[in-house]
Amino acid sequence: MKLLNLFELSSANRKQLAQIPDLEIIDPEQVTPSLITKISAIYGWNQLGTEVLNQSTQLRFVQSNSAGVDYLPLKTFKQKGILLANVSGIHAEPISETVIAYVLAFVRGVLESEHAKQQSKWIGDQIRPTITTLHQKVAAIYGTGHIGQEIANKLKVFGVKTIGISRHGHPAANFDQVFTDHDAIKATEAADIIINIMPLTEQTHHFFDRSFFETLTNQPLFINVGRGPSVDTEALVSALQAGKLSGAGLDVYEQEPLATDSPLWGMANVIMTPHISGGFVEYGDAAFAILRENLKSILKNDRVARNQVDLSEGY
Amino acid sequence: MKLLNLFELSSANRKQLAQIPDLEIIDPEQVTPSLITKISAIYGWNQLGTEVLNQSTQLRFVQSNSAGVDYLPLKTFKQKGILLANVSGIHAEPISETVIAYVLAFVRGVLESEHAKQQSKWIGDQIRPTITTLHQKVAAIYGTGHIGQEIANKLKVFGVKTIGISRHGHPAANFDQVFTDHDAIKATEAADIIINIMPLTEQTHHFFDRSFFETLTNQPLFINVGRGPSVDTEALVSALQAGKLSGAGLDVYEQEPLATDSPLWGMANVIMTPHISGGFVEYGDAAFAILRENLKSILKNDRVARNQVDLSEGY
Repeated sequence: MKLLNLFELSSANRKQLAQIPDLEIIDPEQVTPSLITKISAIYGWNQLGTEVLNQSTQLRFVQSNSAGVDYLPLKTFKQKGILLANVSGIHAEPISETVIAYVLAFVRGVLESEHAKQQSKWIGDQIRPTITTLHQKVAAIYGTGHIGQEIANKLKVFGVKTIGISRHGHPAANFDQVFTDHDAIKATEAADIIINIMPLTEQTHHFFDRSFFETLTNQPLFINVGRGPSVDTEALVSALQAGKLSGAGLDVYEQEPLATDSPLWGMANVIMTPHISGGFVEYGDAAFAILRENLKSILKNDRVARNQVDLSEGY
Repeated sequence: MKLLNLFELSSANRKQLAQIPDLEIIDPEQVTPSLITKISAIYGWNQLGTEVLNQSTQLRFVQSNSAGVDYLPLKTFKQKGILLANVSGIHAEPISETVIAYVLAFVRGVLESEHAKQQSKWIGDQIRPTITTLHQKVAAIYGTGHIGQEIANKLKVFGVKTIGISRHGHPAANFDQVFTDHDAIKATEAADIIINIMPLTEQTHHFFDRSFFETLTNQPLFINVGRGPSVDTEALVSALQAGKLSGAGLDVYEQEPLATDSPLWGMANVIMTPHISGGFVEYGDAAFAILRENLKSILKNDRVARNQVDLSEGY
């Protein structure tokens, strides 16, 4: 099996792969027109992946290095019978921490204090009566998978009531209640915090649009750590300006990098991180562990051991 | 009993006090030279409190509206046999939230992203490989009372190992280990996060000084939500500049408000809030609940029901 490496492999990772019989690692600079037709597995993805997809007669398995796979040609994978796995699961810890970071920066006056610090201004008396705690607040979390459950787990230690929203509405760990998409708006209109961690599918594209924000009654915080295109950015900006939302914590955007003329940059009630909420120093090793297990399993019995993506569902 | 109100009492609070027999509320503007000699209880403290202390022959009880009471003339209270209570306990929730807010703003790249946002700069590729999570980090918490325990409780859900340091070194809830002051430096030199929530006493004044910071081996974050004078500010600034500390989260300062020419204002690796970490919208009601219980108890049997301060210990 020839594995094309389009992500990253440390020397320790390479040593471990060297112990798997019948496995050869190909790095991008080694690829030739004749070799490309023989590649049978890919780790990561970029333009070279598309070329392999078009030219290789032997491609059987792709291990993405992300949780969301909306950027991959899933229909072609399905037509060609290519197996796909993601690295879902390793993002729960870092993303849930980033969500808590956003929320607390708002409610504890840390963001406002940071702005005052830029001007060497002591705003204790102004800000003290306005700050609150998370105790007994209500969070509506769109997406009740691994990451949503871990966000809920952390929020619960702060005394937050957790409402989940998923397609099926099945009960999920750490959620006080779970509703279906269909009942979502009724269930979340009075929430204090709204968090998106849904995958991007046709159904979730621009899910958070003008009509969604219109329903909100309690000036919640809006957090997006899912996918940028699930949010209609213009509608979000309007909702922030009109006070339908008290603030937003954003890690993902419809266009990335965010355009330099986006109004979001200048909004004081927006915390932004540049699509890093899933990142952490040991990310490469955590993703590699899933790749390694899947390669062994594919070589042994042509099956994906962990995190196989349903190509029809898209996640 | 004549209660001088030097803090705040809502109209709902006043209605509740009106139901206690033999209790009269005096507001500052009502105080006359003859009335001042008859005041027997004080809620809160300011210069007028000092005048009552000097002139009243009947002062029996002071209910502070803070947890720390280092600003009160404790020796005089002791000489005159005045009972003192604080409002310790109500700060655990808000202060622990602020501590988590500081720590996550650093480790998840939220602070650095906020600085980049001011310049409309997308720093995803630079920052992603540098951020980490709290998982398996070590936090050394100086002070294992209510607030320290609640900080430890929250950190544990993030997978943090919690080391407590207290005068007696007794085990305390949510701490994996507790050491005495005497063993503190050895126990904490390799910590990732150092948090001060000790009361201010003669023993803790400038506890965090040049020699303390010198011992640190792991470039920890330093958090002060206790009292400003427990830290030698010059030594802190030097430790931040020299890289002995990777960052600091500060709510309290040796001088408050912080002087406009303090170098702390301009330091990018410092998060500052203006002595608000214990604040929250419902603070007045939470403090009042303790006052009310204590007034009833003093009137009934001349005893403090909750949060009596040991005037020799200072907390």
